[in-house]
Amino acid sequence: MADITPSRRVRRTPFTPGVEAAGVKGYTVYNHMLLPTRFGQDFVNDYHHLKRNVQVWDVACERQVSVKGPDALRLMTLISPRDLSKMADDQCYYIPVVDRHGGMLNDPVAVKLAPDHYWISIADSDFLQYVLGIADALELDVVVEEPDVSPLAIQGPKSDDLMARVFGDAVRDIRFFRYKRLAFEGHDFIIARSGYSKQGGFEIYVDDFDLGMPLWDALFKAGEDMDVRAGCPNLIERVEGGLLSYGNDMTRENTPMEAGLGKFVNAPGEYIGKAGLGLRPARRMIRALAIEGDIPPCDRLWHVYAGGKRVGQVTSAVRSPDFGTNVAIGMIADSHWDAGSKIEVETQDGMRNAVLQAKFWI
Amino acid sequence: MADITPSRRVRRTPFTPGVEAAGVKGYTVYNHMLLPTRFGQDFVNDYHHLKRNVQVWDVACERQVSVKGPDALRLMTLISPRDLSKMADDQCYYIPVVDRHGGMLNDPVAVKLAPDHYWISIADSDFLQYVLGIADALELDVVVEEPDVSPLAIQGPKSDDLMARVFGDAVRDIRFFRYKRLAFEGHDFIIARSGYSKQGGFEIYVDDFDLGMPLWDALFKAGEDMDVRAGCPNLIERVEGGLLSYGNDMTRENTPMEAGLGKFVNAPGEYIGKAGLGLRPARRMIRALAIEGDIPPCDRLWHVYAGGKRVGQVTSAVRSPDFGTNVAIGMIADSHWDAGSKIEVETQDGMRNAVLQAKFWI
Repeated sequence: MADITPSRRVRRTPFTPGVEAAGVKGYTVYNHMLLPTRFGQDFVNDYHHLKRNVQVWDVACERQVSVKGPDALRLMTLISPRDLSKMADDQCYYIPVVDRHGGMLNDPVAVKLAPDHYWISIADSDFLQYVLGIADALELDVVVEEPDVSPLAIQGPKSDDLMARVFGDAVRDIRFFRYKRLAFEGHDFIIARSGYSKQGGFEIYVDDFDLGMPLWDALFKAGEDMDVRAGCPNLIERVEGGLLSYGNDMTRENTPMEAGLGKFVNAPGEYIGKAGLGLRPARRMIRALAIEGDIPPCDRLWHVYAGGKRVGQVTSAVRSPDFGTNVAIGMIADSHWDAGSKIEVETQDGMRNAVLQAKFWI
Repeated sequence: MADITPSRRVRRTPFTPGVEAAGVKGYTVYNHMLLPTRFGQDFVNDYHHLKRNVQVWDVACERQVSVKGPDALRLMTLISPRDLSKMADDQCYYIPVVDRHGGMLNDPVAVKLAPDHYWISIADSDFLQYVLGIADALELDVVVEEPDVSPLAIQGPKSDDLMARVFGDAVRDIRFFRYKRLAFEGHDFIIARSGYSKQGGFEIYVDDFDLGMPLWDALFKAGEDMDVRAGCPNLIERVEGGLLSYGNDMTRENTPMEAGLGKFVNAPGEYIGKAGLGLRPARRMIRALAIEGDIPPCDRLWHVYAGGKRVGQVTSAVRSPDFGTNVAIGMIADSHWDAGSKIEVETQDGMRNAVLQAKFWI
């Protein structure tokens, strides 16, 4: 693949100097920002290290949409298919968000900072613009903005140990999708137990660009004897774990139910997408697939066939060293979504046989 | 710089096979899509060729927001600071768009297809989400979607000759920012005289993914004796010409007036940003600057100083072979925005002297 060209439009992060010094090998662009994709020559070394050790990830591209003001909860309730009424003050909620017709616009995590202040930690689409459109049209009393907040993720089985060395043992008590405010050099950071891997870990919401590298350096110094490394969301590990990627595995074409996220659609009151979702029962759904043979990079949608008829698509796929097959994520019609169904996947290098799985691998 | 990692989230375009065959050397990502940035080893060869010949550009990333239905004009009027009442049926309008507080959300070109159907041809932000937010909040009777439309640009002084060979001499009569529907192999394409260079040319709105490569191939075959080449928006030429880039040179922090686009803010009636813009007179503005000495790639905002005080920022800068200086675009405070003002620019490699220019170079 070709180089990525530097430009201010493709934004550097607070951690980019550290990422560069660690010898980043590949980038993608996510929310107009650099996101490292690999440090080793391929994804495999990063993958093995992530599953056994601890990594520090520059995920500053998980930008926040800050919604603050007297109408903040009203606005959040309008856009959220998930019931926010029981959300605790230290809680994070995964809230797939939809338009009037139930089409997914993003799959962010909402973070409640105060009763009148929320962050929406977004996947790769400018969901700020939708929130702003609602606020502007209804003239709501809120400020909607992207603050200077850049998440830094600590992921891997040794995450608790590394974090405790920098932030103290209190990090060990943070529950899943909850956060605490903990100090580093006198500055309180919001730290949640969360992250885009199945290996456990934390996300630190770094709310000042200039604090990025001091924190990065402190984590590496504290973890010298633990083989801490710079890492990033790993393609193999995320597909093994069935972690969905907005823009890859689901788009505005899909409802949350199709994306297997129906359990997050439970708001009892009215919200913008409610009627639209009611009109769209899921006749296709996200599924795990094992694909046989050699496959090229999945950089485009692969059509899926059974008996010569189209029954779906594959959108993420990669060779898994630990499971000895090509792990894949696809959207499959109800006629073939049961475990054991045999289908064919049309890659740019030709047709491959595949089998539907009962669940993801990890 | 590191490689860009393939993924379906970073979308390929209808023309990507042609771009790859032409030996693309660099990419950026724009509207979640691959945008080539150079074909030669640096920007200079592409630049000289563009200014003397004709190039075919994959600008599929200029995605369309289609607004169609009985409320289409009402919605367009709500979001547009520009008066649309005199817009002809074959016309394109540059319409910087703003939020309630006058902050720029994009700087698209609106294309009028019919009285109840517009395309908004966007720069790099998901402006569809803002339009959708307004439509959903007000329950407007419109369909807002991204259609399968991928612009292909023909740019350079020999553009008319190349286009006439494929679409006939009628292309020569297309006026600036107007369009005609002209046939290629029986399919009518919307073709506008427009494009992101100052060298003249056209944009073909390719409204079917599968027609992309046949059209690409036909243009190259027709132009064999003209040295037609694959090209792309050229960093040097666009900065010489003062063509602004949303995300680089202006963001939501700025008003259209600050971006020097005040003449496009003239809607007589009410629109969402009207009151907000009225509260923000421009005390800083986009300016051309000549920077002395050697400069690194402008991949971040460079602060600008005069007498030790911050008076602005530079956001695009590159060496110009034709003008023998570093051409640059900056946002400069009214105290120093006059031609001839001397300032200092803080790059990542140190401070450089610069002088305000009366106008851009071409």
